[in-house]
Amino acid sequence: MQAEIITIGDEILIGQILDSNSKWIAEELNKIGVSVYQITSIQDNKQHIVSALKQAQKNSDIVIITGGLGPTKDDITKITLAEYFNDTLILNEEIVENNKAMFAKMNYPFTEINRQQALVPSKCIALKNNWGTAPGMWFNKNNKVVVSLPGVPNEMKGLMTDSVLPKTIESFNLPYIIHKTILTYGMGESMLAEKIEAWENQLPSNIKLAYLPNYGRVRLRLSGKGKIKNELEKSISIEVGKLEKIIPDLIIGFDENETIEVAIGKLLKDKKQSIATAESCTGGAISKMLTAIPGASKYFMGAIVAYNAAVKVSELNVSKKIIEDNSVVSGEVAEAMAIGIQQKFKTNYAIATTGNAGPTTDVTDKSVGVVFIAIATPTKVFSEEFFFGKPREKVIERASTKALEMLRKEILKN
Amino acid sequence: MQAEIITIGDEILIGQILDSNSKWIAEELNKIGVSVYQITSIQDNKQHIVSALKQAQKNSDIVIITGGLGPTKDDITKITLAEYFNDTLILNEEIVENNKAMFAKMNYPFTEINRQQALVPSKCIALKNNWGTAPGMWFNKNNKVVVSLPGVPNEMKGLMTDSVLPKTIESFNLPYIIHKTILTYGMGESMLAEKIEAWENQLPSNIKLAYLPNYGRVRLRLSGKGKIKNELEKSISIEVGKLEKIIPDLIIGFDENETIEVAIGKLLKDKKQSIATAESCTGGAISKMLTAIPGASKYFMGAIVAYNAAVKVSELNVSKKIIEDNSVVSGEVAEAMAIGIQQKFKTNYAIATTGNAGPTTDVTDKSVGVVFIAIATPTKVFSEEFFFGKPREKVIERASTKALEMLRKEILKN
Repeated sequence: MQAEIITIGDEILIGQILDSNSKWIAEELNKIGVSVYQITSIQDNKQHIVSALKQAQKNSDIVIITGGLGPTKDDITKITLAEYFNDTLILNEEIVENNKAMFAKMNYPFTEINRQQALVPSKCIALKNNWGTAPGMWFNKNNKVVVSLPGVPNEMKGLMTDSVLPKTIESFNLPYIIHKTILTYGMGESMLAEKIEAWENQLPSNIKLAYLPNYGRVRLRLSGKGKIKNELEKSISIEVGKLEKIIPDLIIGFDENETIEVAIGKLLKDKKQSIATAESCTGGAISKMLTAIPGASKYFMGAIVAYNAAVKVSELNVSKKIIEDNSVVSGEVAEAMAIGIQQKFKTNYAIATTGNAGPTTDVTDKSVGVVFIAIATPTKVFSEEFFFGKPREKVIERASTKALEMLRKEILKN
Repeated sequence: MQAEIITIGDEILIGQILDSNSKWIAEELNKIGVSVYQITSIQDNKQHIVSALKQAQKNSDIVIITGGLGPTKDDITKITLAEYFNDTLILNEEIVENNKAMFAKMNYPFTEINRQQALVPSKCIALKNNWGTAPGMWFNKNNKVVVSLPGVPNEMKGLMTDSVLPKTIESFNLPYIIHKTILTYGMGESMLAEKIEAWENQLPSNIKLAYLPNYGRVRLRLSGKGKIKNELEKSISIEVGKLEKIIPDLIIGFDENETIEVAIGKLLKDKKQSIATAESCTGGAISKMLTAIPGASKYFMGAIVAYNAAVKVSELNVSKKIIEDNSVVSGEVAEAMAIGIQQKFKTNYAIATTGNAGPTTDVTDKSVGVVFIAIATPTKVFSEEFFFGKPREKVIERASTKALEMLRKEILKN
C-alpha cells in the first residue's frame, strides 16, 4: 500500500525551515511497511490544498496532511477538508473538555477561539491531541484514508505514534513488522558488511537488514515481517544473538538513540571509575561530548585544553625534551599528555589528543589531518596515529569519536 | 513569477535524508524575487516524473528538478526529459572535453560510462558542471523553463549559483534585488524589533526588513528591489549606516556566515591579545567554539574544564572557603575561576562558567538552568547570573553564546 504526505505552510516554500516532519513521517510509515509515493509541500491556500489532495488520492491509499490547524484566521485546512468531504463542522464536546482541562492546568483563560479548535467535520474521527489544542482528524471514504495533523512537531509525532500508525495497521490489516536496531562503532560500513556477510546471507527471508551509517557509527536495522508476533520476536532475537558472537566488540547497544558517550558513561558508573581528557587539536570537543550526558560529574573529573605547547609543559608535565625530540604532534607527546592528566586529576582513565586540524600547519612538520590519540588505563598507556583528512570540523569530530571508541575498548578489557 | 521544485529519488521518500536541497533552492529563489509554489519529492520512475512535471508546469514559469542524473542505470531522468520534449540525446563534445580534463586531473580512467554523461537532449542548453560529470540542463519551451540538476548538494549549488540563478534573472527580466545581512548578538528578536522600530518604519518602500533569529543571534536581512543597481546599493548602504548608529554594540558583522567566535578571533588577533577559559557547566563547549576557528592557536591558550569542585580548588586556585561560603554555583566562584585561569595561562582575558545544566541538581542549592558567567579583563573581573531554562543542551549552548557575547563587549571597550 502507498501513502502520500502533504505539508501545508509557507515556511518550507520560502526556504526558512527544513521539512523534518515529512522525513519523520516517511521513516515511520516505511517501518510499518507503507511506502511513500510522494511528499508535497504546498501553500496555505484552499484551491491548492484541494488540488494537491485530489492528485494524492489518485495514487495513494492514505494521505497524511500536516500543518494549517492553528487557531489563527489564515489556517484554512479544516474548513477546506470539510468542503472536500461535503461535510459541516460540529463542536466535539470531548475535545472541548480535553482542551479546557489543559488550559486549567496551565492557568490560562479558555477563550472562544480556543473553543473553536474543537470544531471538526462531522464525518471524521477526531484524534485526541495530548500535546496541544488542535485535534487530529481521520477521514475514511471508500477505504481511502485522509489524515490531518497539526504541524507542531511534538504534537504531530504524538498523534502519529498514539493514533495514526496503530489505526493504519488496523484499517489496512498490515502484517506485523518488528524492527531491532544494533548500534556499532569502530568499523566503516563496507568493512562491516564484509565481516557479517555470511550472517546476512543466512537471514530468514522475512528478515531484512539495513545499514544506516553516520560518522564512525553504523546502525544495523533488522526488520522482520510476519503474522505471528511471538514467533517474529523470537526469530529476530536468535539472529541478534548470532551477530553478537561475530562482532562482540563493535556493538555498543540496542537503543536507537544511544551514543558512545552514553555507553561509556554507563560503563564507568557501573565500575565506579573515572576519566579526564587532555586535548590539543580537539579543543575541548571530547570533554563537551562526555559532559553532555546528565550525571557525567559522577565519573568525569575534568579536562585541560592544552592548545599551546607551553601549556602542555606547564599543566600536563610534558617534558620540553619529548616535544623537541618528537614534534608536538607525535605519539610520544600524546602519551605524555595522557599520563599528565591522569596523574593530575587522579583518574582511572585518560584520553589525550594532539594533531593538525588544519586548514594549514602552523607549528609542526606533520600534515593537516594527522592526529595522535593516546589512552591511559590503570595499567598502561598507548597511542595511535590517524589521518582524518579535512575539513577542520570533520577532523575534530572524527578524532573525538575515535578517541571515545578506543577508550571504550580499554574499559571493557579491565 | 512562480517556481516549482521537484526532487527525484528514494532517499527522501523512505525518510533516510532531509530534503535540504529544496530548502536551499527555495531560499535562493526567494532572494531573487521568485516565489515557490510547491516542492515535490517523487520516485525515480518515468511515469511519475512525467506526471509531476506536467502538473508543475501548469502552475509555474520555471520548474527545477534535482536528482536522477548519475551514471547508473536506474537514473532515468535524462531520457524521460528527452521524451517529454520530443527530443533525442546527442553527445555534447564540450562536456566530453570538460569531463575528460577532470578525470585526467584526478588520474582516473575515462570510461564509456563517463562519456555517456555528456549525452544531453539536443534542444536543451547544457550547463557546465565544474564539480562533477553530470551537466545541468536548461529547457525553454514557450517561455516556460525546466531545469534539471544533479542531486549532489555541492554540484547543485554550484550550478544554481553560476548558471541557473543568473539565467533566471535574465530570461524573466526580473528586477534587481540586493540583500544585505546584518549580524547581531546580545538582544532577543522582540526587544531588538522595539529598539529599531523607528528606523524600520522609515525604510524606503523598496527596502524590506526580515528578522532571522537563531539562538541568541538575530540576523537582520535588508532586501532592496529596483531597476538601477548603483542607486539600490547606495540606498541600502545609507540605511545600514543609520542602523549602525542605533545599535553599534550589537552588530558583529555583515557576513552571512560570520559567528561571534570568528568576530572575537579577529579582534584578539588585531589587538595581539589572548584568552583562556575555565569551564564547569559548559564542559568545554566554549573552548570547542573558540578552537573551531582556524588559526585560534594565535590567541587561544587553552582551557581547564573543572567539572569537579576539587579540580576548581587544585587547578584554578579557587579557595575552599569561597566555595563553602557561596556554593559552588555562585558569582564569587565564577570570578575566582576566571582569575585563576587568567593567571595560570597568563592571558589578557578569561571566561569562567559555573551552573546547573540539569536535568537534576546534584551538588548545589541553585535551580536547574542557573548559570554564573564571569569575565576577567586586564583591569577587572565581574560576573552575571543567568537563567537558561532547560533542556541540558540548550543551557550549555545559551551559556556558551552569552559568555562569548559578554567577552566581546569587554574586548571592544579596551
